Amino acid sequence: MKTIDLSHTISTGMAVYPGTEPPEFSDQCTIDSDGFYEKKITMFSHTGTHIDAPSHILKKAKSLDKLPISSFTGKAYVLDFSHLQKTVITYQDMACYKPLLKKSDFILLYTGWYQKWGESAYFKNFPVLSTEAATWIAEFSLKGIGVDTISVDRTDIRSFPIHRIFLEKNILIIENLTALEELLNIDFTLFCFPLKIENSDGAPARAVALV
Amino acid sequence: MKTIDLSHTISTGMAVYPGTEPPEFSDQCTIDSDGFYEKKITMFSHTGTHIDAPSHILKKAKSLDKLPISSFTGKAYVLDFSHLQKTVITYQDMACYKPLLKKSDFILLYTGWYQKWGESAYFKNFPVLSTEAATWIAEFSLKGIGVDTISVDRTDIRSFPIHRIFLEKNILIIENLTALEELLNIDFTLFCFPLKIENSDGAPARAVALV
Repeated sequence: MKTIDLSHTISTGMAVYPGTEPPEFSDQCTIDSDGFYEKKITMFSHTGTHIDAPSHILKKAKSLDKLPISSFTGKAYVLDFSHLQKTVITYQDMACYKPLLKKSDFILLYTGWYQKWGESAYFKNFPVLSTEAATWIAEFSLKGIGVDTISVDRTDIRSFPIHRIFLEKNILIIENLTALEELLNIDFTLFCFPLKIENSDGAPARAVALV
Repeated sequence: MKTIDLSHTISTGMAVYPGTEPPEFSDQCTIDSDGFYEKKITMFSHTGTHIDAPSHILKKAKSLDKLPISSFTGKAYVLDFSHLQKTVITYQDMACYKPLLKKSDFILLYTGWYQKWGESAYFKNFPVLSTEAATWIAEFSLKGIGVDTISVDRTDIRSFPIHRIFLEKNILIIENLTALEELLNIDFTLFCFPLKIENSDGAPARAVALV
């Protein structure tokens, strides 16, 4: 058994969604003064590798803390789109993966975009699914879909159509994954447990693959 | 396969270690104003169910983000001390569990104290290990030890002797676990992945058992 970490490090200088603020850490206790180190952490609920709850976009929908813990783990597969070199992944690009969609609880879209993590280019013209492709994917019995980009929607389309397609079917969205290339052509189990924050519209999570 | 959540909910009114502050949440974006909900979260690194890193107590020791991801999962067993009704768990109380200590990566001490979560009594006279018992446990090849109390040390002993015994041997400490009684007499796998926070002396984690 091998464990692979699919999570970015949460740091003060990290990339965050346009309009939100990067995390802040301050030492509240130190070994010299108090005998131990402890930090105060300030961060947004969708910072770094995180999960979007249905309540992120939909009124009166479920928050992450109200979902059973089994919602966050299951059979997973990485779908490879790294060769496409285009900003919209279409139904035609997806269709070949139908057998994998049928047998997976989670699918993770590997575009390679995570390699721009830390650069301003990470936020511009990243690949997203077409609404047709997303609608088709949402017909499968998935617990979640993950991406190695900042969002499943373009940042300039504020109606969040792709979020809406998945969250209306209670398919969770995992954003800002990394290291997906290590899982190409491999069956694995995904563990992506979010912090259990009350009424969490979203929460940072440690995403891990068990191969 | 069954998953059992061993984590407390992080909420504004929750119990925190004496001298630290409870979490604060504020709505930064709302569906009405922005099309989506997003919170700003302020919390301490040792809030709720969390892991202590060696760097929590020891200078120049490792923080959680520098440890391999395999450090946070492994074979686990719950040791039952709920019948003891005393504040110090001794070597004599522990010795019968030697076979389980030999075969486990993690041991979790079930005292039942977590039932006081949310009351001021949670912080007073909770059970702890004797230094003799802790020293004996630390001789086994453990990745971590977990408790259903606020700390492995009494809050009035500021030299943190029990923390020191485990962290000096790079045995991680998981505090504020819940629901351990569901795992009595069962072999299971523990997944307790902390948030990947830079230089984390400790970090909140979602602790989950896979039976």
